[in-house]
Amino acid sequence: MQRMLSTELSAHVGQAVTIAGWVHRRRLLKSVAFLIVRDAAGLSQIVVTDPDVRAQLEELPEETVVTVTGTVKEHATGVEITEPDVRALSGAAAVPLPFEVHRPALSAGMATQLDHAALALRHPSRALALRVSAAATAGFRTALDRQRFVEIHTPKIVGTATESGANVFTLDYFGRPAYLAQSPQLYKQLMVGVFERVYETGPVFRAEPHDTARHLAQYTSLDAELGFITDHRDVMAVLTTVVAEMTATVAERTGIEVPEVPAEIPSVHFADALRIAGAPPDEPDLAPAHERALGEWAQREHGSEFVFVTGYPMAKRPFYTHPQPTDPRWSNSFDLLFRGLELVTGGQRLHRHADYLAVAPDPEKIAGYLDGLRYGMPPHGGFAIGLERFTARLTGAANVREATAFPRDLHRVFP
Amino acid sequence: MQRMLSTELSAHVGQAVTIAGWVHRRRLLKSVAFLIVRDAAGLSQIVVTDPDVRAQLEELPEETVVTVTGTVKEHATGVEITEPDVRALSGAAAVPLPFEVHRPALSAGMATQLDHAALALRHPSRALALRVSAAATAGFRTALDRQRFVEIHTPKIVGTATESGANVFTLDYFGRPAYLAQSPQLYKQLMVGVFERVYETGPVFRAEPHDTARHLAQYTSLDAELGFITDHRDVMAVLTTVVAEMTATVAERTGIEVPEVPAEIPSVHFADALRIAGAPPDEPDLAPAHERALGEWAQREHGSEFVFVTGYPMAKRPFYTHPQPTDPRWSNSFDLLFRGLELVTGGQRLHRHADYLAVAPDPEKIAGYLDGLRYGMPPHGGFAIGLERFTARLTGAANVREATAFPRDLHRVFP
Repeated sequence: MQRMLSTELSAHVGQAVTIAGWVHRRRLLKSVAFLIVRDAAGLSQIVVTDPDVRAQLEELPEETVVTVTGTVKEHATGVEITEPDVRALSGAAAVPLPFEVHRPALSAGMATQLDHAALALRHPSRALALRVSAAATAGFRTALDRQRFVEIHTPKIVGTATESGANVFTLDYFGRPAYLAQSPQLYKQLMVGVFERVYETGPVFRAEPHDTARHLAQYTSLDAELGFITDHRDVMAVLTTVVAEMTATVAERTGIEVPEVPAEIPSVHFADALRIAGAPPDEPDLAPAHERALGEWAQREHGSEFVFVTGYPMAKRPFYTHPQPTDPRWSNSFDLLFRGLELVTGGQRLHRHADYLAVAPDPEKIAGYLDGLRYGMPPHGGFAIGLERFTARLTGAANVREATAFPRDLHRVFP
Repeated sequence: MQRMLSTELSAHVGQAVTIAGWVHRRRLLKSVAFLIVRDAAGLSQIVVTDPDVRAQLEELPEETVVTVTGTVKEHATGVEITEPDVRALSGAAAVPLPFEVHRPALSAGMATQLDHAALALRHPSRALALRVSAAATAGFRTALDRQRFVEIHTPKIVGTATESGANVFTLDYFGRPAYLAQSPQLYKQLMVGVFERVYETGPVFRAEPHDTARHLAQYTSLDAELGFITDHRDVMAVLTTVVAEMTATVAERTGIEVPEVPAEIPSVHFADALRIAGAPPDEPDLAPAHERALGEWAQREHGSEFVFVTGYPMAKRPFYTHPQPTDPRWSNSFDLLFRGLELVTGGQRLHRHADYLAVAPDPEKIAGYLDGLRYGMPPHGGFAIGLERFTARLTGAANVREATAFPRDLHRVFP
């Protein structure tokens, strides 16, 4: 008999069905036993009265994979399966489990969860975060596919550390040193010369010496870059459609509550942002408290959970940032804040080869990459979204490690 | 004035328009000059009769980025822009170019093309291969999204080389050795325990000591894995829908001719495949000549450019392969051949923890990964498609390096 999902049972009351999944929980009462089976779609309840089946159930610990054939019956709050025939597909699962998956919240600490990720991720709350992540990625691609962007795949092994010398992993590349790419930044810029508009969803690597709740040694970067822009505001307009599609796809696929993305997200220049946040006018960057104040201001003044801050001081942005034409102390860059936290960074880039030679910290070292810009590049810009941080902020996870399956950090390269 | 694409001009005859793109070619004739501008959608022809504009054009070498404002006129074979106002956006492009992009075929050898990839990829034939690659990736995801698969992101830095000890890149991970993942194999299996059906599109790394037309040190692997299967034939059925969606999406987005994927691809067991190919019955694997013979057989007998070969000898498949229950010399695995060349490899995997302990070449070394299988795994299987090889076979590229933007190989880690 064809296996059916838990969510399909209610359409088959009175019929014989087969389901399959994991033993989520057993409740062995005096006169009756209940078996809860978990599949990818949800939970099913099976009522066991036959003493032989009950005896069998006692030998099938939680997380054993089973198929159950029986009859669907209505009960007070839904449907259940009665008169079951139960078969184990996996052999009995290991006992004891390091923690129980069927509790409403995982009791194990983060380190234990990460040590046993293959089990912890079966908990609905952990699995949900990864579904949110998958949906956000799909929304990112949908929005950009619709706007003529072409997906690219760029090297993760690079000959020179282009983004910055620090925090880079070194590897042995056929006997020579090479590095793991910290971002696809220069590659996506070069590909603007080919397709005008490109995106990539892929891993980036940072040898972060900080052991915090928001740093990972590998994370997924959702990168986009587009040419023939007037300035950074064209990039912000595309990003707004992208964030709207990401949150809409998350809502549609997972049902979690998502913030409303205004058609036009309020925007404030860095100089004004300092004033609004009550910071001294010579501050070179926004502190977390300032970002929180700006989040409250956007909520209060514009009813928006999102706010753009533009024009960050050039001194605080990467060398490829385009200055603000009217005042080159400022830049044509932006951050997108969500509930007072930085969510996305982007901006307009330099596009003339000569301008790069003038500002790159070590132009000889990255001459090869810069060579690609000699052939004629249009004004362009882009942005990068850290997928795990985005997911953590949507789900309310306090630690970015909850938004990725097998995190990598200072102490962890396993499992 | 809003910039328009080359393909939109024909709907604006008689109107003033602005286009933008790269100087693809200039033809400076005696009484008239033609400027061909290339954008992401195609080419536009601009007619120059004004001596001042002609003089300006003489100073704008090929690949300079320009905007052109003028009037759209019909001519014999399409439309052109007349009375142009031309502006350079990028500053003049570098001259001389290492090769000309406007020729029907790139005259430069592969090494020169790769040295100047940012320029070579602007040639329509090279750009087309990358568009095919993007479309194939999109089709892969569409087919699997439709069948309840969840996208995952797995670690590219691993503590132990799981797939095989050879051909693995070693890196310095915060002072300890770690390795670049050769495949997401064990991770995607563990994630079957969470979502039942998963896929990943991401980079994998092989320290290939072979300098051939089909080996890359980094390539994009399109991986899928699904649980609750009966055997490898369930995997082959999913793969058939995936390849059909990939080719359909390529045809739709790029217009290139693609092979027809039968609703049921013909399938032949390894033992019969040897017979058909005229090979001795004790051959342990199929040689390229055998694969070609099978391709011809499938075309002749079934009118199919695709053919599955199943049941490869266990001795020739990875340790996680599930044996054929009726005869454990053979395996529940398959290759998909396209025009006589291997395109995809897949199969059913072992799913019981004890079975892994019995066969893994070095079970202690990968104990942590195998631990995840202790918690109960359903019968499962999957496949992996090498995106660059798939693209090369669809476009007819002789070298897999033509199907990726910035290839990595034994000799090349740049640009």
